[in-house]
Amino acid sequence: MHAIIDLPQWVIDENEKLPKFIESIEERMELVIEFSRKNIRYQTGGPFAAGVFEKSTGRPLVIGVNRVIPLNVSSAHAEIVTLTMAQKILGTFDLGQDGMPDYQLVISAQPCAMCYGAIPWSGIRSVVIGASGKQVESLTGFDEGPVHPQWQSEYRRRGIEVIENKRSADACEVLKTFAASGAKIYNGRQRP
Amino acid sequence: MHAIIDLPQWVIDENEKLPKFIESIEERMELVIEFSRKNIRYQTGGPFAAGVFEKSTGRPLVIGVNRVIPLNVSSAHAEIVTLTMAQKILGTFDLGQDGMPDYQLVISAQPCAMCYGAIPWSGIRSVVIGASGKQVESLTGFDEGPVHPQWQSEYRRRGIEVIENKRSADACEVLKTFAASGAKIYNGRQRP
Repeated sequence: MHAIIDLPQWVIDENEKLPKFIESIEERMELVIEFSRKNIRYQTGGPFAAGVFEKSTGRPLVIGVNRVIPLNVSSAHAEIVTLTMAQKILGTFDLGQDGMPDYQLVISAQPCAMCYGAIPWSGIRSVVIGASGKQVESLTGFDEGPVHPQWQSEYRRRGIEVIENKRSADACEVLKTFAASGAKIYNGRQRP
Repeated sequence: MHAIIDLPQWVIDENEKLPKFIESIEERMELVIEFSRKNIRYQTGGPFAAGVFEKSTGRPLVIGVNRVIPLNVSSAHAEIVTLTMAQKILGTFDLGQDGMPDYQLVISAQPCAMCYGAIPWSGIRSVVIGASGKQVESLTGFDEGPVHPQWQSEYRRRGIEVIENKRSADACEVLKTFAASGAKIYNGRQRP
């Protein structure tokens, strides 16, 4: 009994073509947003992407996308999928262990309640966010879930840097495109 | 590029031998706690287990266990693994969709911040908890993460029933056994 969490072929191909280093946080975010845009275009998941980068050098480890509907797995949000791939690549469940560089997670939109809770377990040291949770909810109808009311300070208290509102206009454009496509807004409450 | 989320062979074998219906909530919890106990004994993951049952009949769909260390995936908590297997079995990311019975998640310990956020996306309608989050933290040193301060009322508001403190003494015994074994307490903050 098992489930496979995978990335579509185009994501694998694009990962192989990434530049060796992406210095600015804005450029890292632009790249991640481009993956979220293509995930709509190729119909390989929801309108969200995430990338793991070495924080100081900007070396990309992996960029991944939302896979909920294609995999039929409700937890296959971009953050969970991408962190799982990063852990697979590095052969550890802790990206923050001794001897590793600080890793940064760049996300096209603010993490939902689940992904918010998942990030501290991953060993990620820095989170960069595009669209806000409120923008996600108002533009698409996706629900962010019961996110902790002091989510930023809880992260900082745990040594996780939070950088918000990076290229959020571009991230919101992708969400608008998705909403306009009439694609399915999945959530666990189709039957209230 | 992919990751496999699986259950150990003994869990698959034990799932095949489950009774067809387990009527009382206490018996469902006893069964789940037994899986958490065996997960320590067979060294196939952390001291946590979760089961998905049809709420009204008690028919077990699947019981799963924590797999963080064996899989090197920080999100492979018992709840995420078990919900993923349930979704795989039923071929849907939403266990709460029309035409399905209400599904109940029985967990040996209170969900951490991540699993708390994951449960609403899964379509689960009822959650039964053994050990409390405080008991997990005090008995083992595991961190529950930034759990929402009004976690129970946020669930109820979303139509998810919460039943706490079921067979918690038995669940705590398993946690004590684990702590006494000197096994690894994984988390994402090994380097503060």
